[in-house]
Amino acid sequence: MTVAAVIDSLPQIDWITDPALVRLKSRDFFWYSPVLKRQLNGVTAEAVACPKDEAEIIAIMAACVKHQVPLTPRGAGTGNYGQAMPLKGGIVLDLMGLDRIVWTKPGVVRAQAGVKLIDLDAHTRREVRGELRFHPSTKRTASIGGFIAGGSSGIGSCTYGKLREFGNILGLRVITMEAEPRVLELRGTDIDKANHAYGTNGIITEVEMPLAPAWDWVDVLAGFPDTLSAARFAEALIASDGIAKKMAGVVAPGVAQTYFKMLQPYVPAGAACALVMVAEPFLELLKPLLDRFGGTELYRCETEKAETPLYEFTWNHTTLQALKVDRSLTYLQTLYPPPNHFALIEKMEKTFGDEVPLHLEFVRLNGVVTCFGLQLVRYTTEERLQQIIDIHEDAGCPVFNPHAFTLEEGGMKRIDSEQLDFKRIADPHGLLNPGKMLAWDDPDWTPERKRTFYLYGQADAPDVEEVLE
Amino acid sequence: MTVAAVIDSLPQIDWITDPALVRLKSRDFFWYSPVLKRQLNGVTAEAVACPKDEAEIIAIMAACVKHQVPLTPRGAGTGNYGQAMPLKGGIVLDLMGLDRIVWTKPGVVRAQAGVKLIDLDAHTRREVRGELRFHPSTKRTASIGGFIAGGSSGIGSCTYGKLREFGNILGLRVITMEAEPRVLELRGTDIDKANHAYGTNGIITEVEMPLAPAWDWVDVLAGFPDTLSAARFAEALIASDGIAKKMAGVVAPGVAQTYFKMLQPYVPAGAACALVMVAEPFLELLKPLLDRFGGTELYRCETEKAETPLYEFTWNHTTLQALKVDRSLTYLQTLYPPPNHFALIEKMEKTFGDEVPLHLEFVRLNGVVTCFGLQLVRYTTEERLQQIIDIHEDAGCPVFNPHAFTLEEGGMKRIDSEQLDFKRIADPHGLLNPGKMLAWDDPDWTPERKRTFYLYGQADAPDVEEVLE
Ligand SMILES: Cc1cc2nc3c(=O)[nH]c(=O)nc-3n(C[C@H](O)[C@H](O)[C@H](O)COP(=O)(O)OP(=O)(O)OC[C@H]3O[C@@H](n4cnc5c(N)ncnc54)[C@H](O)[C@@H]3O)c2cc1C
Ligand SMILES: Cc1cc2nc3c(=O)[nH]c(=O)nc-3n(C[C@H](O)[C@H](O)[C@H](O)COP(=O)(O)OP(=O)(O)OC[C@H]3O[C@@H](n4cnc5c(N)ncnc54)[C@H](O)[C@@H]3O)c2cc1C
Repeated sequence: MTVAAVIDSLPQIDWITDPALVRLKSRDFFWYSPVLKRQLNGVTAEAVACPKDEAEIIAIMAACVKHQVPLTPRGAGTGNYGQAMPLKGGIVLDLMGLDRIVWTKPGVVRAQAGVKLIDLDAHTRREVRGELRFHPSTKRTASIGGFIAGGSSGIGSCTYGKLREFGNILGLRVITMEAEPRVLELRGTDIDKANHAYGTNGIITEVEMPLAPAWDWVDVLAGFPDTLSAARFAEALIASDGIAKKMAGVVAPGVAQTYFKMLQPYVPAGAACALVMVAEPFLELLKPLLDRFGGTELYRCETEKAETPLYEFTWNHTTLQALKVDRSLTYLQTLYPPPNHFALIEKMEKTFGDEVPLHLEFVRLNGVVTCFGLQLVRYTTEERLQQIIDIHEDAGCPVFNPHAFTLEEGGMKRIDSEQLDFKRIADPHGLLNPGKMLAWDDPDWTPERKRTFYLYGQADAPDVEEVLE
Repeated sequence: MTVAAVIDSLPQIDWITDPALVRLKSRDFFWYSPVLKRQLNGVTAEAVACPKDEAEIIAIMAACVKHQVPLTPRGAGTGNYGQAMPLKGGIVLDLMGLDRIVWTKPGVVRAQAGVKLIDLDAHTRREVRGELRFHPSTKRTASIGGFIAGGSSGIGSCTYGKLREFGNILGLRVITMEAEPRVLELRGTDIDKANHAYGTNGIITEVEMPLAPAWDWVDVLAGFPDTLSAARFAEALIASDGIAKKMAGVVAPGVAQTYFKMLQPYVPAGAACALVMVAEPFLELLKPLLDRFGGTELYRCETEKAETPLYEFTWNHTTLQALKVDRSLTYLQTLYPPPNHFALIEKMEKTFGDEVPLHLEFVRLNGVVTCFGLQLVRYTTEERLQQIIDIHEDAGCPVFNPHAFTLEEGGMKRIDSEQLDFKRIADPHGLLNPGKMLAWDDPDWTPERKRTFYLYGQADAPDVEEVLE
């Protein structure tokens, strides 16, 4: 490998080569998973490139192809399955320098990939009273390109569904990994090729996103006698098309009390909680809805004015808050398919009790109100974790395994032939974020097959101290 | 009755007393129904009051109570079940003089009841890039107060549901019919008391409505091999939370070809049609969706620029367009409850064939994509019409009977005790739009019971020439 040759050929680029810094920029939130922590701890690149514009990106890509050097794109590095970790070393491409908003019009914004979600929202709110339809709970740190390449849904998905749904991304500008990189504009159904592909088949430099009206959102925390009552409330809220809302998360009794430091003073012992965001004009409608399910309002704060917004206690932040208190915890990502979701929730709660404290997020999926589980798990062994996953799947709750770093194993457990075909065109040498698309390394892969993979870095690399605040 | 006494006591009010004019202002689109046409043709008031502000309304109401004169509110008179017709004579209260917008802020508008929907939308679009979440197909003529008091849903309900759903009306200012009329502000669940009450339990003077983003809408007409393919397309569109859309109507083969004059040149023989409104940025997503269901785009036009917008071929306008060609037609209003809606549609299409040409509107109802039928009916006799209704209901398709002028018979066929209780408070003398709330006249009413009612006017009144252009 000749990372040095790439660096030498591009002196105008801003490079990071200090090994400690490079190692930090080669990591993300993979350590949420004890399994990934064991597997990926030693992973590191040899250098990080920090381009300032698309021309520099194209130059880096061409040089990497010339010297056959792996290139792994990186936004803010908040992925939680090692998405942005350079399994085969080489160069990390830091995209945060592409931080320009290209244009804004009512209902639509076009921005460079490295724009932070919080900056994007502030801009569109100011310019056209719009905001992203939904964002991950990492809004304050993550990039729009990283969200599209590595995320899926989040705060706002209770109204608009997932990124993958038609219309939630309008256009992607993608650079191919070829001797002479091409600039492609993906639109319509072509967007699926690069959406949630972990940057394995092109570097996204610009995104075109539809906007939602930017309401004045209000965080409301409500207490309920049990998880199911809170869940039924959350579902009813999401089914209310007349109420503008952005979030409906639920945690079982004990979760908020033990792990949500900021909220502890408000939450009575034994209460399950719903965490919601509602637009200001609709607040007066919450009370009757709460009454219907035995709920009580515990806390209310304008989202913008909150020191820590309520969304940083939902989605994958729930796990983060819990990890701050107890490093032995980990998590799952499951679906409770309608219409039997409540029965399944009840069954899993009974089956696992305090070993798997429930955390639910209500969303719309293909137009149907749907319940995701991002349960906490009191981790003991990898075997037991696998058992817990198997019991869920056997019961009819598909698991999107957050303890796997490949697209296929974490996703639908099938080969996405559209993304694979696009990789053949856009990354024919297989240099982009290698090791993440199983079907590329092994086109005959099936979910039953065991894998071996090559990880760049020392197997016995010392731990990096993870900072949780 | 002493209408004359009321008029004499209020010389400052603008009165209409010319009998021909009064009779015109006593009518609405009741003649859509041959049954209502027979029953209500002779109905007329004795005078029409045209107040310019709330103070004048209060003065009129107090005088009517004093002299025990029936008072029937009226917006633009586009109701299609005789909602605004003064069954017991007295005075019609024309509210179109209350045409002021009270205030506008992002996402919410407050307006007087007589503001025309088209003026309201133009205002909020200009001021805050917002528009009403949905409007009846009579947008160009109807009033916001009349829509709330007499309507239910319409163009935009595919995203936001019905007026009755929580959050679709934020506030109503209502004047009670008492010796000293009170001014009430109904909010939250209290709104149900006066929403869709035909003005039987209070006069609405102001409404507070949530707004949707004002997209640049585009009308698209698409052709399909059959009604079910068009219906499946419409359902898929409505289930796509990522696509901003405002309408998804479907008509069976023959309907557009025979009755939609403006569209005839575009529609091939034998095609079923879908009539949709999609926001401009999402237009490029229509093609793949059409392909999926064998559809072809036939016609496209910006809604604002169309001579006749496509929505004037949907909802109750479909019937109007058909009536322009064939005066012997009438219609139904049914629900095809999910999840068996397609089977029910198919069954009804087979059962009735060309006697009941299908017309469907896809909406969301309590968060679920749902299909309404506003079928055309080739009318023969009242008995056969009743048979057609019965066959639908027996098959599991509830009918909201448009051939009945009372709230109960046209609605859920049960007494709405909340509205009845409110009438006891807000109209203790039973003077407001009398004869429309069955439960008031006969609290023991059940759907099985036959009724007699008193109609003001001549039983043998000559027909008024209905103008259809
Ligand atoms: C506390 C916490 C909460 C989270 N909450 C959510 C949530 O609510 N919803 C959700 O979907 N995810 C969530 N995630 C996962 C993660 O935050 C999101 O995927 C996030 O949006 C990633 O953005 P990023 O800028 O940090 O991207 P990174 O983590 O840097 O990258 C993500 C992936 O995208 C690739 N990539 C980055 N930029 C580009 C580009 N320009 N072109 C091509 N590929 C690129 C990377 O190679 C990597 O595979 C959460 C993670 C954490 C740690
Ligand atoms: C061609 C056509 C298409 C239609 N399409 C639709 C549709 O898509 N969706 C739909 O819901 N309806 C539809 N309708 C029915 C009708 O248009 C709507 O109900 C309409 O909004 C009524 O508004 P208006 O101003 O004409 O009210 P009016 O017809 O004048 O009044 C309607 C009812 O409200 C009462 N009322 C009016 N103003 C007040 C007030 N300020 N306070 C208290 N009571 C009041 C009247 O007494 C009457 O009972 C349609 C009708 C026609 C003829």
